[in-house]
Amino acid sequence: MLQGALNESILRIARQKGLAEIRLHNLRDYTEDRHKTIDDYPYGGGPGMVLMVKPIVKALRAVFSQTDETKAQIILTTPRGRLFDQHTATRLSLREHLVILCGHYKGIDERIHDFFTIDEVSIGDYVLSAGEVAALAMVDAVVRLLPGVLKDIDSAWTDSFNDDLLDVPYYTRPEDFEGRKVPQVLLSGNHKKIAEWRLQKREKITGERRPDLYKNYKSKP
Amino acid sequence: MLQGALNESILRIARQKGLAEIRLHNLRDYTEDRHKTIDDYPYGGGPGMVLMVKPIVKALRAVFSQTDETKAQIILTTPRGRLFDQHTATRLSLREHLVILCGHYKGIDERIHDFFTIDEVSIGDYVLSAGEVAALAMVDAVVRLLPGVLKDIDSAWTDSFNDDLLDVPYYTRPEDFEGRKVPQVLLSGNHKKIAEWRLQKREKITGERRPDLYKNYKSKP
Repeated sequence: MLQGALNESILRIARQKGLAEIRLHNLRDYTEDRHKTIDDYPYGGGPGMVLMVKPIVKALRAVFSQTDETKAQIILTTPRGRLFDQHTATRLSLREHLVILCGHYKGIDERIHDFFTIDEVSIGDYVLSAGEVAALAMVDAVVRLLPGVLKDIDSAWTDSFNDDLLDVPYYTRPEDFEGRKVPQVLLSGNHKKIAEWRLQKREKITGERRPDLYKNYKSKP
Repeated sequence: MLQGALNESILRIARQKGLAEIRLHNLRDYTEDRHKTIDDYPYGGGPGMVLMVKPIVKALRAVFSQTDETKAQIILTTPRGRLFDQHTATRLSLREHLVILCGHYKGIDERIHDFFTIDEVSIGDYVLSAGEVAALAMVDAVVRLLPGVLKDIDSAWTDSFNDDLLDVPYYTRPEDFEGRKVPQVLLSGNHKKIAEWRLQKREKITGERRPDLYKNYKSKP
């Protein structure tokens, strides 16, 4: 499911340059029965299936037989987790080793927390059929922040969220497309005016679309 | 980049059963120069590249030469957008036709909004290198809600977010794993007690991890 995406775009570049190493592990390789069962019905009833604790404990023990558990951070993708954001991405980009457990179905047997220190993290307030999609989003957001991955790291500093404001509207060639023109100020060469125009636009868009972020922005000295 | 993920898991099932049709379009097929250029530098300066308006207008016009634009909803994935959540997923699952534009670099030339009605949507407060990842998350969240896709649609009604509470912790076989036991109440067969225990757990976890959701929950009659 992930092989294709991990071999494209920025993730391919990061892996080829040796800036990030990404390994996929299949939970079914850590089962013991002929059907390679990894899920079962929940105790107490209710719809949906639950990932069993045993294959996951075995898989993590296998991972940590080769790498130092104390240098790793284990993350479980689940809509029950704390929200992943740009600050989390930056923090995770400084870690030596991340292990991302991809939740499925109704989640993982809760007892996994008795065996490992695991951060439950959610990429947003929606439910996905497979945690692999959430893992891919986290990996992409983190890997692009690793030194050497982005051609122009300055580009990342002008992203949304670095200062609680959304990014500015952009324009590129041609100057006139079917009668629609680029705003005059951007063609003026007056850097001070351009910076003022951009800040105004960012404040306006953030206020309209994300009053929560705008409040944070306004409350800072 | 997406081909692999779209052919796995729930998305493969939905497509095989004819419950969802997903087509990929490559912007480079709508360029006119030898290098198939789709991006250029931003007017007004600054780091990063901007997707040009022309190939996108051409691509969308090609899509709507085959399908009815009035029955479609066009979404642009961008960190500047309104936040995608489970309500958005449910709403989009009722639409006949979705067109998702995958943002890249610093975004798309703003003039695209002069030609089409486009909702700017973000899957979370973080920056991705490629909007394809965000598109995949949206497609997955929407497709699993289509009738016939989930084996047990009841499973979706007990998901997180359907009532502003996060989902409950789950347990499955074995009853005892390396000395760690399933909570006694879940083995009791007493459905009323199990329901009470689960509600308590959901309220506690939501209060701890997502005070914002918990406030919504408490404010409802």
